[in-house]
Amino acid sequence: MTEKWGFYEIELAGPTEGNPFTDIQLSGRFRLGDRRVEAEGFYDGDGVYRIRFMPDQTGEWCYETFSNCDALNGRTGTFACGEPTEDNHGPVGVANTYHFAYADGTPHISVGTTCYAWIHQGQALETQTLATLETAPFNKIRMCVFPKHYLFNQNEPERYPFEGEPLTDWDFARFNPAFFQHVELRVGQLCELGIEADIILFHPYDHWGFAGMSAEQDDRYLRYVIARLAAYRNVWWSLANEYDYMKTKQLSDWDRFFEVIAKHDPYDHLRSIHNGSKFYDHTKPLVTHASIQSPHVDKGREWRDAYKKPIIDDELCYEGNIEPPWGNITPREMVHRFWTATVMGCYAGHGETYMHPEEILWWAKGGVLHGESTPRIAFLRQILEASGIDGLDPIKNENWMWNSRVAGKEGEYYLFYFEPHQPAVWTLPKGGPWRVDVVDVWNMTLTPVDGEQQGEASIPLPGKTFHALRVRKA
Amino acid sequence: MTEKWGFYEIELAGPTEGNPFTDIQLSGRFRLGDRRVEAEGFYDGDGVYRIRFMPDQTGEWCYETFSNCDALNGRTGTFACGEPTEDNHGPVGVANTYHFAYADGTPHISVGTTCYAWIHQGQALETQTLATLETAPFNKIRMCVFPKHYLFNQNEPERYPFEGEPLTDWDFARFNPAFFQHVELRVGQLCELGIEADIILFHPYDHWGFAGMSAEQDDRYLRYVIARLAAYRNVWWSLANEYDYMKTKQLSDWDRFFEVIAKHDPYDHLRSIHNGSKFYDHTKPLVTHASIQSPHVDKGREWRDAYKKPIIDDELCYEGNIEPPWGNITPREMVHRFWTATVMGCYAGHGETYMHPEEILWWAKGGVLHGESTPRIAFLRQILEASGIDGLDPIKNENWMWNSRVAGKEGEYYLFYFEPHQPAVWTLPKGGPWRVDVVDVWNMTLTPVDGEQQGEASIPLPGKTFHALRVRKA
Repeated sequence: MTEKWGFYEIELAGPTEGNPFTDIQLSGRFRLGDRRVEAEGFYDGDGVYRIRFMPDQTGEWCYETFSNCDALNGRTGTFACGEPTEDNHGPVGVANTYHFAYADGTPHISVGTTCYAWIHQGQALETQTLATLETAPFNKIRMCVFPKHYLFNQNEPERYPFEGEPLTDWDFARFNPAFFQHVELRVGQLCELGIEADIILFHPYDHWGFAGMSAEQDDRYLRYVIARLAAYRNVWWSLANEYDYMKTKQLSDWDRFFEVIAKHDPYDHLRSIHNGSKFYDHTKPLVTHASIQSPHVDKGREWRDAYKKPIIDDELCYEGNIEPPWGNITPREMVHRFWTATVMGCYAGHGETYMHPEEILWWAKGGVLHGESTPRIAFLRQILEASGIDGLDPIKNENWMWNSRVAGKEGEYYLFYFEPHQPAVWTLPKGGPWRVDVVDVWNMTLTPVDGEQQGEASIPLPGKTFHALRVRKA
Repeated sequence: MTEKWGFYEIELAGPTEGNPFTDIQLSGRFRLGDRRVEAEGFYDGDGVYRIRFMPDQTGEWCYETFSNCDALNGRTGTFACGEPTEDNHGPVGVANTYHFAYADGTPHISVGTTCYAWIHQGQALETQTLATLETAPFNKIRMCVFPKHYLFNQNEPERYPFEGEPLTDWDFARFNPAFFQHVELRVGQLCELGIEADIILFHPYDHWGFAGMSAEQDDRYLRYVIARLAAYRNVWWSLANEYDYMKTKQLSDWDRFFEVIAKHDPYDHLRSIHNGSKFYDHTKPLVTHASIQSPHVDKGREWRDAYKKPIIDDELCYEGNIEPPWGNITPREMVHRFWTATVMGCYAGHGETYMHPEEILWWAKGGVLHGESTPRIAFLRQILEASGIDGLDPIKNENWMWNSRVAGKEGEYYLFYFEPHQPAVWTLPKGGPWRVDVVDVWNMTLTPVDGEQQGEASIPLPGKTFHALRVRKA
């Protein structure tokens, strides 16, 4: 039985002649009571057509197909949708303006990483990447549909997304189903690991010509990807990595892509677009959240105020040691930026670029993690998931002067982050009584302060680098 | 014999009746060849009047006094001025727009600290402070003329600057010579240690009324201080600590103070004014350099561009552990801000605020240093003094992308500072050949890279936190 937010697929046999990718129109209408959901189908090669659907209500659904091809038109059926299994909380959406939650209401504390081209590295490395992700703290991964050509990324992928002669004569009107089946395989595996796939639809690091398709080709590609992938509950749409570095696209193209996705994705998955040096206008209504590249995480509050949406700085430089400055921050700085983003009421994204003899850098290819930030990010995620509040918002208070940073929920929960400060004493908020823990951010310890504390009590702190204070209503 | 930039004093006996501070006008005119320098005299109590003079040329000087009192008027004399002794390089002035040099041309790499009220703490503690300064790396100290009343500063000074009933009935028209003799004693001792006295003339942390004098009283106070102190070659004038927090003064008062000082100081000692939260307009012509309070040392290049003068961020927070955020940055952060200021082509100031059972915090009272930043600041000073160039200016280069920071002199000297970056390899500038040293900023080691290196060579680096690279023309 299909589960709620699970995956239902109609498989149909149809014509192989002509160009089924362009000649055939196919869609399904799914109904349960008053609800009707339309989903586009797609050609999967070898005369196989599919319509995929993610039901979001339990009960008996029925469907009917629509096509300009008789063999595919007017097919009907029913299927039962049951309760979701334990780890299935549904797709992630925006919650409380600045935060995220799964469809069942469970908060989603976004803790992402980036492996741009991990699905284009071959079976051995991709399997290793999945094994790494299984024990890593990340619940979102930024990844490209297209392969990547760039520094440390000179290898050709095993599969290409289009038919034709690689690099010389693509047929952009004919998709390569094997390529997309492979994308889906990986997206599905991520789903099983509880990881959101932040799918990057376009990017500038191209030598194949995928960045330079026509508007018609771009839109057809988008609809094909949506038809194939939207039924995966863990999908997020990222229109681009570094949209502003793609000289082949205009701002109007990006605006149109948002419209195409909003129109054809039946589930309204999260939509954003990631900048190089120039931020997109994230106030535009089809942008669900801001996906930002910036080393300046301490501007998080400004971004929240500007966009009134969830903020993820998911490229705040990479922990690593390569020469370009975007790829060599210290593990300490990575952890610092995560905590800083947190107390700004925002979310951060991890990435790693340590030099490797075979050029296997996590940031692009996956593999294994070499850095020291990951366990500290896991520790932070544990703290945030135990907060008991629906997202931390920055708290302003005259008593907490100048550089001090605190987020939480007034009267209930406060997370003070001190670095680069090291006070040896701290005055608790008014109210209470409070349960207080001293947090060693680097050594990953939570040390409770004995007993319940009253409001405005002075709490001794270690007066050392890299500490935080957690204050919860007793 | 008086040495060049030394101290010559004319002592005269005069009247004690009336109010010698206001009734008597006294000045000296000093001549050598075509040069004429006018210096105001002052009443030092007990019928003693003094005129002080700092000669800036060797040779036979003659002088003549002028007064409205016959006993003090028309006195003449001569004295010889010889070569300066080894450690006497003269007063510090602006050099190369953004930097400082002593009058003999020796660069002055400003490495300051702050002990606001150290001269008001009694003999034992003041002696201890001097002993600390003797081995500390600081060549400038920010210090107030007036005592300080503030958090951790509740003790009354031994001496007050004015006659009258303390706190109830000051006679602002009568100075207390013993108070100013004590100020001079300390300024002179600093001079012997090679430390510039950055003398803060007004400040808001007052409960005596010294911050609330009339314009006439303020100006008389300034002229008295100038008459007494200007002949000390190590004097800098700082009009205020946190001028914008002094509600008793208007912007026009500060502008006038600059004029009074410029008019009456015969030696044109450095003049600046230190902000609380609102920067003074340091483009004004009588401001010789910017004395800034800001945690944002990474804005140094912007400040240089705005003011076209030397920039000292001499209050970038204090290493310490008190609760207010301005007083509790980590030693690591203090060192980081010094290095950051350096590669921005600016200068930084140190300070310490560790909690102390007797409330003896270096920042206000002196004593001993408890922190860990000081030896690292000494290490940085050594590197800078060995640079062989007249001040480090920021260098922009397309190859050094984004967050990378480098200062020096194009083609001659480069200091790259990486934190929070940790590249494992770095490409040298074009040109060369270069002598290259890897600098461990925290552990204070300079490790030469073997041999001379060619331009654009790739240099392996430790790929660890808190490193820098020194590149010098071979």
